[in-house]
Amino acid sequence: MRIGIDVGGTNLKAGLVDEEGNILTVCRTPVGRFTDGQDFAKVLAELALKAAAQGGVRPGKIIGVGIGIPGAVREGQVLYTCNLPLRDVPLADWFRETLDVPVRLGNDADCAAVGEALRGAGRGIRNFLLVTLGTGIGAGLILDGKLHTGCGMAGEVGHMVTHFGGRLCTCGRKGCWEQYASATGLIRRTEEEMEAFPRSLLHTVARENGAVDGRTTFQAAERGDPAAVHLCREYAEELGCGLVNLINLLHPERVAIGGGVAAAPESLLLQPLREIVTRESYARHGGVIPAVVRAQMGNDAGIVGAALLDRAVRE
Amino acid sequence: MRIGIDVGGTNLKAGLVDEEGNILTVCRTPVGRFTDGQDFAKVLAELALKAAAQGGVRPGKIIGVGIGIPGAVREGQVLYTCNLPLRDVPLADWFRETLDVPVRLGNDADCAAVGEALRGAGRGIRNFLLVTLGTGIGAGLILDGKLHTGCGMAGEVGHMVTHFGGRLCTCGRKGCWEQYASATGLIRRTEEEMEAFPRSLLHTVARENGAVDGRTTFQAAERGDPAAVHLCREYAEELGCGLVNLINLLHPERVAIGGGVAAAPESLLLQPLREIVTRESYARHGGVIPAVVRAQMGNDAGIVGAALLDRAVRE
Repeated sequence: MRIGIDVGGTNLKAGLVDEEGNILTVCRTPVGRFTDGQDFAKVLAELALKAAAQGGVRPGKIIGVGIGIPGAVREGQVLYTCNLPLRDVPLADWFRETLDVPVRLGNDADCAAVGEALRGAGRGIRNFLLVTLGTGIGAGLILDGKLHTGCGMAGEVGHMVTHFGGRLCTCGRKGCWEQYASATGLIRRTEEEMEAFPRSLLHTVARENGAVDGRTTFQAAERGDPAAVHLCREYAEELGCGLVNLINLLHPERVAIGGGVAAAPESLLLQPLREIVTRESYARHGGVIPAVVRAQMGNDAGIVGAALLDRAVRE
Repeated sequence: MRIGIDVGGTNLKAGLVDEEGNILTVCRTPVGRFTDGQDFAKVLAELALKAAAQGGVRPGKIIGVGIGIPGAVREGQVLYTCNLPLRDVPLADWFRETLDVPVRLGNDADCAAVGEALRGAGRGIRNFLLVTLGTGIGAGLILDGKLHTGCGMAGEVGHMVTHFGGRLCTCGRKGCWEQYASATGLIRRTEEEMEAFPRSLLHTVARENGAVDGRTTFQAAERGDPAAVHLCREYAEELGCGLVNLINLLHPERVAIGGGVAAAPESLLLQPLREIVTRESYARHGGVIPAVVRAQMGNDAGIVGAALLDRAVRE
């Protein structure tokens, strides 16, 4: 048995996962506030033990633990995280002070890609990308059947400039893809369109949902609102631009799109994306045009991928 | 002994290469005009035999041939080339009708990267990119120690959009990196600056060299011309933008820049590029900042890489 841990912005989740990648049980706890990496490692290890106990598995039967971190990791060290006070800390070693089993750290987007590659949208695909749309844009790159991490921080696709000199990104660059094509980017454009079109159905939909979110535009477009239809098209072009960049660079066989925005109706997101990929990929000159699909596993991908990270890593 | 063949725009070159990657002898012939892929394969095979003979090696001692093609290849097939009438042809099989040895095809930028990885600027580096500045921008990606080709057409980095909605590219997309950062892009901007600044030293330098080329701006900048100094800076920013994109995606340990433009003075090209990479790479958050270096092997890289392609391919 294995444990996969997903360190999210608000919750920590530990799942008991079997060798086939089935999640048997999951334990959750809020991230809470902590100032000390060693305490944090202990919380994670205790959560892992709790998940094992909940699944009726003795600690001695756990053969490995994987931890997905929202940041950069390298060989058991957390180098950097966006939201947690962990920098250059030996998290794996500290974890083993409470639960002494092999521990592997991974970036959270990488873990999700591994999960999808083993059990979801990328099953059996040798060159596969998972692109996740959220606050930013994350990705995990499965290249020649294994996870590519380079010197540790590969896959930061959100910080690929598509608009030279454009909008300032949190990373310090100008014109990063995620400023235009993340869920956050879409929400900002939705708000701008609402400002510009006071009579648009966008207002009605936002009121019904209680807020503007990543679904607002798609829902208003489905009800025929012209501003929303236009914005959906614009958003697909922004998202498609970066996807084709990735395809021209890496030429995967399949790209899966994850995150809440990916739940949008096929006709408003995946179908336009496929048209853009077919129109613009360099591979249209006689090569394989990659398939664009929805991710399948949602939040489970990160837990399964963390637990089975071993399988995807090239030694 | 091995043979590496470089199919260029104007010349075909076949080099006799030993197992250590030393070029023992090279034969050249103009590409000429041909309409039939089978004839072309025969010309290549005869050139290979000529190189072997010139090096005093019997055909039976040739254990393998590699052919670098300016286009897309897959498993012995040429899928597509930019300048030659080869489309979906079994070039390797046809080649073997004249010289029956194992034949491997590679993209020319990929072959050059393999050459540099084995014998040049990327020696001993597990994650290494060669970016070549010419008419367009080509690249070869050495990831986890092997050449990454994806579904056959990976590495088309020139066709990564950095200027959304920008200048129309030959590939059909708008705003591709190579429109701004290739040698051709630099020459176009040099001509624009000459038009805008009739008294700039750019005119003097161009007259001395007989034409505007990829060196004009750097030479005028070395002589203190303000328009040229400004253009060098602008060009470094354009080139650096795409380099940082590649670094954020793949996190290599080293990136080598090849092509004539890369011969520019350190202070005007490589030094500014290193500053941009240090300033903008996501890896500055605690990870390894990739080194930016000049390619070392020039045109030999393609021959050596083609000959030793076997070593770099992941089966």
